Order: sequence, then C-alpha cells, then structure tokens
Amino acid sequence: MDNMNLNKHISGQFNAELDDIRNRVLAMGGLVERQLEQALDAIATLDAELAQSVIEGDHKVNGMEVAIDEECARIIAKRQPAASDLRLVLAISKTITDLERIGDACVKIAKVALDKRLKKQQPLLVSLDSMGRHATRFLHGTLDALARMDADAAFALHKEDAKLDKEYEGTIRQLMTYMMEDPRSIPEVFDVLWATRAVERVGDRCQNICEYIIYYVKGKDVRHVSYEEMEKDLNL
Amino acid sequence: MDNMNLNKHISGQFNAELDDIRNRVLAMGGLVERQLEQALDAIATLDAELAQSVIEGDHKVNGMEVAIDEECARIIAKRQPAASDLRLVLAISKTITDLERIGDACVKIAKVALDKRLKKQQPLLVSLDSMGRHATRFLHGTLDALARMDADAAFALHKEDAKLDKEYEGTIRQLMTYMMEDPRSIPEVFDVLWATRAVERVGDRCQNICEYIIYYVKGKDVRHVSYEEMEKDLNL
Repeated sequence: MDNMNLNKHISGQFNAELDDIRNRVLAMGGLVERQLEQALDAIATLDAELAQSVIEGDHKVNGMEVAIDEECARIIAKRQPAASDLRLVLAISKTITDLERIGDACVKIAKVALDKRLKKQQPLLVSLDSMGRHATRFLHGTLDALARMDADAAFALHKEDAKLDKEYEGTIRQLMTYMMEDPRSIPEVFDVLWATRAVERVGDRCQNICEYIIYYVKGKDVRHVSYEEMEKDLNL
Repeated sequence: MDNMNLNKHISGQFNAELDDIRNRVLAMGGLVERQLEQALDAIATLDAELAQSVIEGDHKVNGMEVAIDEECARIIAKRQPAASDLRLVLAISKTITDLERIGDACVKIAKVALDKRLKKQQPLLVSLDSMGRHATRFLHGTLDALARMDADAAFALHKEDAKLDKEYEGTIRQLMTYMMEDPRSIPEVFDVLWATRAVERVGDRCQNICEYIIYYVKGKDVRHVSYEEMEKDLNL
C-alpha cells in the first residue's frame, strides 16, 4: 500500500486533480468491465436487446477516453508534474487507450450476438463463453491492481495472459474442426471466430495496463522485457 | 507548410530536442515500413529466410518505442512544454505505440510466410498481396503526412481506411469459399486469414496516427468524431 501514497504536493488542488483523474480512469474501467460482462451474456444467450445496449453504450467509453486524455494534457501543461506524478499522468493516458480498445472488443462481441444463425449453433459458443469469463476475471484483477497501484499484482496478472492465449488456441482448433465437419456452417463459425479473437485481445490489453501500473509504481518500462529480466529489475 | 514552423523557443536546446524526437519517430516509421514491405515480400514468395529476418528485426522496433517514449517523458519533465510543443510530444508518444503494433503485425505476417503448406496453396495469397500493397501505400502516405505535419493529408488518408476495409471483407469472403470448397485446406487458410487480419490492422493503426497528426496541427481530438463534424471542426 506504500505505493498509493502519492507525494505530498505544495498545491492541494494539484493533489485533488490527480485523485480526480485516478477516479475517472477507474470509473471508465468499471464501465468497460460491465460492457464486457454484458457482451458475453448477450452472446451466451443470443440476447439481441442486450447486445444492442452494449453497442449503444460504447459512445460513453469513447467519451471518457477523450475527456480524461484532455484532462491529462491540461494537468501536464498547467501543473508541470515531475517524477511519479508525471508517470501517473502518462500511465493513465496510455491506460485509457487500452480501456477504449477493450470497449471496441465488447462491441465486436455484441455484434456477433446479433447473428441469428447462431441460434442453431449453440455448441459453438461454449468455449468462447468459458474463455470470456476468464478474460473478465483478468480485467477485473487488472482494474483492482490499478485501483491499488499494486505492482506485484500487476506482475502476477501479466503472466496470466499466457493461460488465456492457450485457451484461445484450443478454442480456435475446436472451431476449425466444426468447419471441417460441416463446411456449410463456415459463415457462422467465422462470426464466432471474430468474437473469440476479440476476447483474446482483451487479455493483451490487460497485459498492457499491467505494464503501465509497473511503470508508474517502479519507474521502469517493462514493455518487451522477459519475465526473468522483469523480476531482476523490479525485485519482485 | 505553415504547420511545420514550430514556435520559436527561448532555448535552442529545447528546439533541438523536439527536432530530435521528430526525426527519431520518422526513423522508426521508416524501419516499420521496410519491415512491412519485407514481410509482404516474404509471404508473396514464401521466402523463409526473409521472413526470419523480419521476425528478428522486430526487437529494433521495440527498442525504438521504449527509447523514444523515455525521451518524451524526459522532455516533459525537464522542459515543461505547453501548447503545440506539448501536443507534439504527446502525439509522438501515441504514434510510436501504433508504429510498434504495426511492427507486431509484420511479425505475424512473416510467421505465416514460414508455413510450408502454403507452397501448394499460392492462389490463396493473391488477394492478401494486393491488400498488403494497399496497406503499404497507406502507411507510406501516413508517414509522409507525419513528416510534413500535414493535417489535410492526414484527413484524406483517414478516409482511405474504409477502402482497405472493403478489400479486407472481400478477401475474407474469398478465403471462406476456399474453405468450403476444400475443407482439408482449412488449417492453411486459417494462417492466411491471420495474415489478412494483420494487414487490415495496419490500416487501423495508420488511421490512429492520422488522428494524432490532426491533434497536433489543429489542437483538436478527432477520435470518435464523424467526418462531417471533423470537416466542420477543422475547416478542411
């Protein structure tokens, strides 16, 4: 919890502004998490109404991205933050890009839920659902690590993505066998394929966010760094 | 060319630093463009050696991303840029993320070029190649607009992505018919599918970079904005 103690600032107003963008990025994360849960519910039950509400809800996510990014630029220009304050603002500015893209993934999943042909192909959706729930837990954990700015948790979660990738590969293989068995089903299977791909991308995005958390807390850029090096670098 | 005139700075050193990150992002863009061309050559001719060199070259792209981003943070902390200088640094920081992801797309394409089964399936690759060349031109134009910080060109290019998306849809349909005709070819077609998807993503990334160019030049965030609004906003 040490990491949460932001440096004391001369300006209480500045502190309040930093708290404000932290809260706003967490609110955006919460919204994206709900979008993901609802998109997965919509595809599991092929609920067109719910899918439609996810699609329509995406503009809120987009709006939050633009507003928070503008606030980040304003804080940098006005407050000229340095050291960990600057890292916080930069990490938030990058995090919201990934959150927005997770929002886009939710829209992709929801659009597939509108495909009526899938009503006859429910078995296709079983692996996708289990993978989707895994991705939801991954996102939930990532947002939790973000709320607590917990680098250890972020590091542990970062490794988690490999499991999701394995699940993804298995799901893709399964979809391929469906195609081979019944080539007429190929168009529907393609739709499920895109949803599966979108879920896999959620994991990649969570991994990026974990890297920003580590960057903020430890002051180290761990993108493109092996786990061995990371552990050494970070004393984890 | 008015847009290129960076504000006069008290510190000549600061000017030099801004020029330096501009040059570095353009160098990174040049490297990514070569990676894309070579990845497409590798898949068109199924040249495993060339594909391998693209895969191995990706660490240079990654290294440039990390180094430029560090320099951006250093400039913000040390020089406390405001207005268009700050927008330049923030736009560059976002641009390199997209360039790095285009680099990842090149690796994906190159990996598919290693699939020996494709030697017997050359017709599968025709549409991918034509789409790939289109994406290369798109990237080239985007980097050109970035070099000149030309918002008009960026706006025109931004619209270009819709054409690439149409080409993508056509290619996907074609791949589906191959699968239906010969279900045994499904695993190879899947490989081509991933490469096609990677090429389509290059277009999306170029579109993002166009948005950052417009943000820098016009001071307007045009993400999630319709073309109509954009034209009105930007007096284009």
